[in-house]
Amino acid sequence: MTTKEEYTLFYWPGIPGRGEFVRLCFEKAGVAYKDNDDVPYFSKLLSGKQEDGVDVPHFAVPILGVHVPAEASDSIKKAKTDDAADVKHASGGKWHYISQTPAILNFLAPRLGLLGDADKLEGLERDVAIAHIQQLCATAFDLNTETHDTHHPVSVSSFYEDQKAEAKKRSADFRQNRLPKFLGVFELTLHKQREAANTETTGRRLVGTQTTVADLAVYQVIDGLLFAFPKCMQHLKQSGKYDRVFAHHDDLAAELQHYLESDRRRRYSNGIFRHYPELDDE
Amino acid sequence: MTTKEEYTLFYWPGIPGRGEFVRLCFEKAGVAYKDNDDVPYFSKLLSGKQEDGVDVPHFAVPILGVHVPAEASDSIKKAKTDDAADVKHASGGKWHYISQTPAILNFLAPRLGLLGDADKLEGLERDVAIAHIQQLCATAFDLNTETHDTHHPVSVSSFYEDQKAEAKKRSADFRQNRLPKFLGVFELTLHKQREAANTETTGRRLVGTQTTVADLAVYQVIDGLLFAFPKCMQHLKQSGKYDRVFAHHDDLAAELQHYLESDRRRRYSNGIFRHYPELDDE
Repeated sequence: MTTKEEYTLFYWPGIPGRGEFVRLCFEKAGVAYKDNDDVPYFSKLLSGKQEDGVDVPHFAVPILGVHVPAEASDSIKKAKTDDAADVKHASGGKWHYISQTPAILNFLAPRLGLLGDADKLEGLERDVAIAHIQQLCATAFDLNTETHDTHHPVSVSSFYEDQKAEAKKRSADFRQNRLPKFLGVFELTLHKQREAANTETTGRRLVGTQTTVADLAVYQVIDGLLFAFPKCMQHLKQSGKYDRVFAHHDDLAAELQHYLESDRRRRYSNGIFRHYPELDDE
Repeated sequence: MTTKEEYTLFYWPGIPGRGEFVRLCFEKAGVAYKDNDDVPYFSKLLSGKQEDGVDVPHFAVPILGVHVPAEASDSIKKAKTDDAADVKHASGGKWHYISQTPAILNFLAPRLGLLGDADKLEGLERDVAIAHIQQLCATAFDLNTETHDTHHPVSVSSFYEDQKAEAKKRSADFRQNRLPKFLGVFELTLHKQREAANTETTGRRLVGTQTTVADLAVYQVIDGLLFAFPKCMQHLKQSGKYDRVFAHHDDLAAELQHYLESDRRRRYSNGIFRHYPELDDE
């Protein structure tokens, strides 16, 4: 890369939420980023409150800001002839904004070295390996959304207390049917990798032998579930059916230990992952 | 590309569903594909029912099968030394399987010429333009999922009739809060494009001037909503707030006319998009 990119993560204050999927990427890669949780500031990037001069509307945070400093963007400008109108000098350089967690992770993964073994492949084999990383991320995000909907099955804009009866029904289905199905696909994925690696000491990642964005995404959602549904997760662990998923969680926790023990790691509270005892196993 | 890839879409019989997002890509591009709706056959690719020799588990359909015929995969084999174990000769060539609609579309978009103007860019500008296409697709898929959840807010494995009361509540919130918010972001996106194009005859696509996978994804979800919530959509249309979204839908319908009028286009029935009058506006 000839340009020096600087990254800012725009997200709600106080909660890990969907921003945490992005934060884990930077923390794992050891690449600097800024957190911006100034709601009035980032609201200007959202649809309906959009500033003039910002080209692309965003549905929600997380939003990744990619800043190319003036020097770098000037050199880009010299190399091209038709992009003068695009370059915003007011802020000293040029800003790009990307939203939607999957799009942000797809953008960052090759930049942060988080494609693992896929990065060594070429052509179709590379494209397929990247697609497998993306499909695992998408599955983790689906699980994340379904976890959120256990406490907000009717309306995201209403209080939990106003949809508690529905939340109990949805949570029961989630614990009995959905969660085991999701853990099952992660378990089988790890099993297939272990088989391919033909050893117990390698093949402990979801795609290939190196940590990818898929490992980070699955780690984060499992970690949130351990907070939100401690009894249910304990029962699933004791069942012995998902040993590789829980071992994978431990592996990643060890890999991310320095960050997880820092004050940059936000505590779960009343975001996506909430602990309501009445929604958990009895 | 040196290899000739052949595509098969594995999806449920009879309904457009999430498979339709993939089908529209092939149909728009005019690239051949096979439909495989043989449930016992594709079930073998799903987690828990997985055949030996299939490396990657899948949570659900749609699954895209990418087949590289024996000749082409032999030439790949000659060019590489370490992939002999990967090549499956039993089926005459090699198969790859990709699931999760966003991952499938990200894989197909550059192959089918559905990145529009982004394909002409390089470096960071290209990556950002592709990210914007992906974020719009993700927003369309979120709307798709929320539409599904209007009739199944409690459990995907139970009947609608058993969650009708909850469905009415969720649908009311969907019609009043969520749907206008989604349409608003698409409307503003089209507005910004039109401003950038500085003419009323161009700038009628979501990213740049050419049709991308984002246009197809947004078209499909709006089309499904017109079936599922005809009264609500009529009221939203009459509000005049989403004129560009409805014009975009008409544009895309004209572009896809040949396919839409064919018997390959499946009718909406009891899939993601269902018309229950009691969930629609009064």
